[in-house]
Amino acid sequence: MEHGGLLSFNKEKTELIDFSSNINPLGFPKSLQETLLDNFNRFAVYPDIKYRNLKFSVSKYLDCKAENILLGNGAVELIDNFCNEANRIIVCTPCFSEYILRAEARKKPVLRIPYLEDFLPDINSIEKNLQQNDLLILGNPNNPTGLSLKKEDVIKIYELVKAKNAFLLLDEAFFEFCPFIYDSIHLFKKDRFKNICIIRAATKFFALPGIRLAYACTSPEIAGKISRNELPWHINTAAEIAGCVIFEDNDYIQKSKNLIQEERKFLFENLNKYGKSSVIPMVPYFSECNFILIKLLKHSDVQAHEFFLDKNILIRTCSSFGVLGNNHIRIAVKSRIENEMFISAIKI
Amino acid sequence: MEHGGLLSFNKEKTELIDFSSNINPLGFPKSLQETLLDNFNRFAVYPDIKYRNLKFSVSKYLDCKAENILLGNGAVELIDNFCNEANRIIVCTPCFSEYILRAEARKKPVLRIPYLEDFLPDINSIEKNLQQNDLLILGNPNNPTGLSLKKEDVIKIYELVKAKNAFLLLDEAFFEFCPFIYDSIHLFKKDRFKNICIIRAATKFFALPGIRLAYACTSPEIAGKISRNELPWHINTAAEIAGCVIFEDNDYIQKSKNLIQEERKFLFENLNKYGKSSVIPMVPYFSECNFILIKLLKHSDVQAHEFFLDKNILIRTCSSFGVLGNNHIRIAVKSRIENEMFISAIKI
Repeated sequence: MEHGGLLSFNKEKTELIDFSSNINPLGFPKSLQETLLDNFNRFAVYPDIKYRNLKFSVSKYLDCKAENILLGNGAVELIDNFCNEANRIIVCTPCFSEYILRAEARKKPVLRIPYLEDFLPDINSIEKNLQQNDLLILGNPNNPTGLSLKKEDVIKIYELVKAKNAFLLLDEAFFEFCPFIYDSIHLFKKDRFKNICIIRAATKFFALPGIRLAYACTSPEIAGKISRNELPWHINTAAEIAGCVIFEDNDYIQKSKNLIQEERKFLFENLNKYGKSSVIPMVPYFSECNFILIKLLKHSDVQAHEFFLDKNILIRTCSSFGVLGNNHIRIAVKSRIENEMFISAIKI
Repeated sequence: MEHGGLLSFNKEKTELIDFSSNINPLGFPKSLQETLLDNFNRFAVYPDIKYRNLKFSVSKYLDCKAENILLGNGAVELIDNFCNEANRIIVCTPCFSEYILRAEARKKPVLRIPYLEDFLPDINSIEKNLQQNDLLILGNPNNPTGLSLKKEDVIKIYELVKAKNAFLLLDEAFFEFCPFIYDSIHLFKKDRFKNICIIRAATKFFALPGIRLAYACTSPEIAGKISRNELPWHINTAAEIAGCVIFEDNDYIQKSKNLIQEERKFLFENLNKYGKSSVIPMVPYFSECNFILIKLLKHSDVQAHEFFLDKNILIRTCSSFGVLGNNHIRIAVKSRIENEMFISAIKI
């Protein structure tokens, strides 16, 4: 399976603008560099094996208790740990390829339920198929579609999951990019996160894919159960330090949210305006996220990849998402100057 | 289970001298800080998902090919991956507690074969018990005993393992500290690492427990098989960068080896000289490593822990190693000034 972020192995790094990787274009919070420098000697000692300070900091940011927190060496480690506990994994396709890969690595059967038109979840099919100890994984917002679940839908799905004594894993790695009208953590707190876990991460929004820091919120009972099988010291010291400073940087957080909101609008409007008449005719899907899924009207994703590469732009082909066929690409929402370069490229 | 390196949760950090954690007293190579600084922006991009440069650098250091290399987010991740592939895990006790914990996390049965007198491996018992698809894990040198396998013994054990089509995992996380007369990688290279994997790590010798970098050498077939189930981006960017510079620092490597050799001798001789007549009477075991196992003649390990804590020294109690009972402690070989403080403490 393919992943985004393949910059280093396409042409020379300095030439290419990477629209394949959905990372905050502002880069990581500047405060981080200074703090890491001041704490450099901590690489020579083990991280706290219980990650007390880190869990406290994350819980403050997510507005829950430290006992609700799970940590991951990236979101995929958390997904993997939950796959390990389930009988079967249910995913709605298209989705992040790692949901299926981790299920397979854990030798668990996978049930794929395609999204309906407009990428709405097929709640009827979920209800019909869901069984005890199933793990239902949903991207919220979903990758590569860029859409989040409606509040009433996520509640409905959660009630189904509870009724069947299954488990709902919401992958909200892109949470902060979305102009959300609800926060799942607030939504499910009153139910003490029974049968649900919500994953978030520093990877995308805080632009730290290299530091490997993801976190999740679930019931203390589930947190305890998952923790027992975690590798010791699975979170490295740089991530431990980062997790104690980045959430405090409110200026950065607000600035990032505003930037993405504005640039998503800019990209979407211009894709709509110039997409159809482009040399590579295309139509964007509406997105609530920091990436936009695009349907190609006449070309394959590989042809589009070649076309953009020739203009020093790296895009994400979507054939590997399976159900989308070979006529979709995904591009990240980047800074204005880069987004303009993308629009210029399709205008030619 | 308990681990060493509990410094941060015993008294105030600045007060205590940590003899519980077996880390190179020189600290990590100075070259690392500069390189990490120069590459700080790499935290904002994903590590190479195939870790090509890192594997090349490790293979050069270990004197094998890149196709032989496996990487781990610490040695325990590698141990965990191998446990996953086996029917049953065989360990020789006492040993690093994680061998058994990872086997249990992977729901695999564990057979414990105690070391014989003088902590020699019970090769007859290994031969009698070994079955197809067993994973035999041996510390080489072993923690907490500090002894490595004799060359003829490791060859004999390997031949048994091959004959039964089992697998031998040598945990050599402390390799560079030992005045080894053989290098397992050279020893098993001619057999193309069939049925064997040798784990090494930056954790102890390069004093980087916080950076999480372990590596291993096995056959390309086994490397491929284990890799298929690895989490993507399991090695963080700091570790990726470190692994491309620390092995080049020959001055640091030689200085560290000399220091440990000299200081182990100093500690051992003085423990022999003053141990028996100490307020806490004790006898050290011979060690080839950067730590020394000590038998207490009259006290429990908890009493010794209290005794040393009162003198601002943190030691490792060994009750958690099970078979050793409650009358053993383990101390790290540190710098001369610290080792002298330990000896002074037992002389009082």
